Amino acid sequence: MEVYKGDEIYSESSEQVVCKVDHEIEPESSEQPVYKNESDSESSEQEVNPWEVSTKDGGKIDYDKLIDKFGCERVDESLINRVQRLTCRQPHVFLRRGVFFAHRDFNEILDAFERGDKFYLYTGRGPSSEALHLGHLIPFMFTKYLQEAFKVPLVIQITDDEKCIWKNLKVADTKKLGRENVKDIIACGFDITKTFIFSNFEYLGGAFYENVVQVGNCITLNKAKGIFGFSGEDHIAKISFPPVQAAPSFSSSFQHLFPGEENLRCLIPCAIDQDPYFRMTRDVAPRLGYSKPALIESSFFPALRGKSGKMSASDPNSAIYVTDSAKDIKKKINGAVSGGQDNKDDHKKYGANLEEDIPFKYLSFFLENDSELEHIKKEYGEGRMLTGAVKKRLTEVLIEIVERHRRARAAVTDEMVNAFMAVRPLPSMFE
Amino acid sequence: MEVYKGDEIYSESSEQVVCKVDHEIEPESSEQPVYKNESDSESSEQEVNPWEVSTKDGGKIDYDKLIDKFGCERVDESLINRVQRLTCRQPHVFLRRGVFFAHRDFNEILDAFERGDKFYLYTGRGPSSEALHLGHLIPFMFTKYLQEAFKVPLVIQITDDEKCIWKNLKVADTKKLGRENVKDIIACGFDITKTFIFSNFEYLGGAFYENVVQVGNCITLNKAKGIFGFSGEDHIAKISFPPVQAAPSFSSSFQHLFPGEENLRCLIPCAIDQDPYFRMTRDVAPRLGYSKPALIESSFFPALRGKSGKMSASDPNSAIYVTDSAKDIKKKINGAVSGGQDNKDDHKKYGANLEEDIPFKYLSFFLENDSELEHIKKEYGEGRMLTGAVKKRLTEVLIEIVERHRRARAAVTDEMVNAFMAVRPLPSMFE
Repeated sequence: MEVYKGDEIYSESSEQVVCKVDHEIEPESSEQPVYKNESDSESSEQEVNPWEVSTKDGGKIDYDKLIDKFGCERVDESLINRVQRLTCRQPHVFLRRGVFFAHRDFNEILDAFERGDKFYLYTGRGPSSEALHLGHLIPFMFTKYLQEAFKVPLVIQITDDEKCIWKNLKVADTKKLGRENVKDIIACGFDITKTFIFSNFEYLGGAFYENVVQVGNCITLNKAKGIFGFSGEDHIAKISFPPVQAAPSFSSSFQHLFPGEENLRCLIPCAIDQDPYFRMTRDVAPRLGYSKPALIESSFFPALRGKSGKMSASDPNSAIYVTDSAKDIKKKINGAVSGGQDNKDDHKKYGANLEEDIPFKYLSFFLENDSELEHIKKEYGEGRMLTGAVKKRLTEVLIEIVERHRRARAAVTDEMVNAFMAVRPLPSMFE
Repeated sequence: MEVYKGDEIYSESSEQVVCKVDHEIEPESSEQPVYKNESDSESSEQEVNPWEVSTKDGGKIDYDKLIDKFGCERVDESLINRVQRLTCRQPHVFLRRGVFFAHRDFNEILDAFERGDKFYLYTGRGPSSEALHLGHLIPFMFTKYLQEAFKVPLVIQITDDEKCIWKNLKVADTKKLGRENVKDIIACGFDITKTFIFSNFEYLGGAFYENVVQVGNCITLNKAKGIFGFSGEDHIAKISFPPVQAAPSFSSSFQHLFPGEENLRCLIPCAIDQDPYFRMTRDVAPRLGYSKPALIESSFFPALRGKSGKMSASDPNSAIYVTDSAKDIKKKINGAVSGGQDNKDDHKKYGANLEEDIPFKYLSFFLENDSELEHIKKEYGEGRMLTGAVKKRLTEVLIEIVERHRRARAAVTDEMVNAFMAVRPLPSMFE
């Protein structure tokens, strides 16, 4: 599970996203068309699947089209208000500002919570790099919030097997990367009494494998080709993998956590490129007598160089890594694509183009203070605030986040990794 | 792994098999053509794969053609003599009489043994039925002999997952059938200090799963289609399975047995319909830095009703089950297809057709005394012995085998099953 596509562009300002409450909600049956071959027709203008996120001419991802195509629902204001009411706290900034902008059955999870029914969270990470960047942290920051707000257990799947399959990494290397990534995940502040982190290479087996086989028994090769675009030249390990990502959606895969609870509901926070896995999972669930997992899905985090600047592993300047120094961060932010005008006079006259301004977008992810953000939006958008000031403020915010993460990560020991990954019951996981 | 195709016909008398030493031995490179689609061309006259064994018009399996097509080698007399010399004991009747008639690299295993190098045995069973018949026992009887003769450890894979995938059985049911079958396997007399029996549903994971993924990384979908005949309508669980059967061929899959021994050689006794799995495994092995597993392969056990009598689960008279009473056995043998002539005069004149005579074939599997078998062959083949006498002798032999098995099985407790299946080191497994 790769929860972040770093080389892609977060295409909509947050305000636009949360305000589109008039968007038609797709009926549940819209999960069916997933089995047409998605490489056909107009969908070829943008390709979003777990291994590729791209648009025809390098332009923006059209999230409205994506929601239509995938058949998920928009997160609207009434849903956000309901979260606030039920959890008695302000919803996370990623929810308020439309980073997590789409869902499937999230309302049913809220119904369950309101009734006092239990559920659990499931997210994951494919360990393809040692140092994480900020985009990698987004789903974990949000998941931590969900865990705290709803007081529920969480399982985190480290798909070291996936990276061995797709990136052709050696088993030992992906396992090692996985453990390093687990340290960053733990540093996000998860509650060890409610959190089980597992490596597929180490945990897969037993009841989990039983679910893998049962899911695989429900998906024909033709369906898998339709969902994931597999070809005859793909290795069969790839074709074997989707049920492995599906299995954690079913509580019976975790006998040490949920013994006798075969049908606990599951909520999956993830980036929307993971939707194909879980459309498949939701399609299969009733045939196995399981509940469909609910989803809450994020858009992609923008690259520093903006839509035309391709983010790549070979260009470390395209992202802020959690290992970057304050000096690195300052330099990178200064080089980010700006929506400010070329000279001061024009800027005062026309204001900044916030749609194109990466520093402002980053602030909308990471500046927690709503009124300050609103102030910057107005002042900068109307040309009274200059690009330099916005970049300076963002630099402060990010240095603080990265420093805090670095301190937290430095405190994570191998013993803590082992403790989070121990196959153990979590007796107070709902408290 | 289904080691026996009960609905098929053992087509050659044992003598013919072992004497064909002039048969051309295929070069190693002959493993390559496996990736053509085998449903093409002349091969369609007979279909032998792990899930189907059939001939065009219900006739005999042509094992010579099969060896040519698969690219394995015949077991010849010099090989059998070498086994006798190296093990200082008479080779097993199934080897002397050509039941195990084909191999891959068995000579290399003998080289290793002669040098004092270690190897291990791997066989398996797909638990599709509760009561086993005699054909099911053949690979285990032979494997027990190999274990004793070479003093080597043995792993036995119970492919409960496979039966869940192909027979659409419930997970719990295949696991239960698996445990029942394990009791029959233990009753064959395996040495608990040298034998590890495992259920895929229970054991798959960890280092084993790492090998599953690595094998899957080497097989394209097109190759898998070529080897196994998968179609777009097959479920992906089927396509995921071959690496699961491949993994036990590599010693690193059993860290509790062979820690640090990543490349112990493996010998696999199995029926020849399993060859596709292990051709694939042998093709993949060098790419993973592993030795190719060696194979010794049996023909199929004949149905009681002969080549025209279709053996089926719904016709219990087509096979001798280990649960049959002496009376059942007597009745079934009396109903077996005979090669004797229709009346006594013709019989004395022409003798019995041993090629068509199922009781004689059965005796050639199960009558240990070579000179008695030779005597029966001569007397019956030349018409001096009558069908009734042959059937009577076979009935005695089978009642004794079945009774012995029943007593042994009755002594197998659940604790013994747990003990054989415990994931544990086997410190004296080579002694």
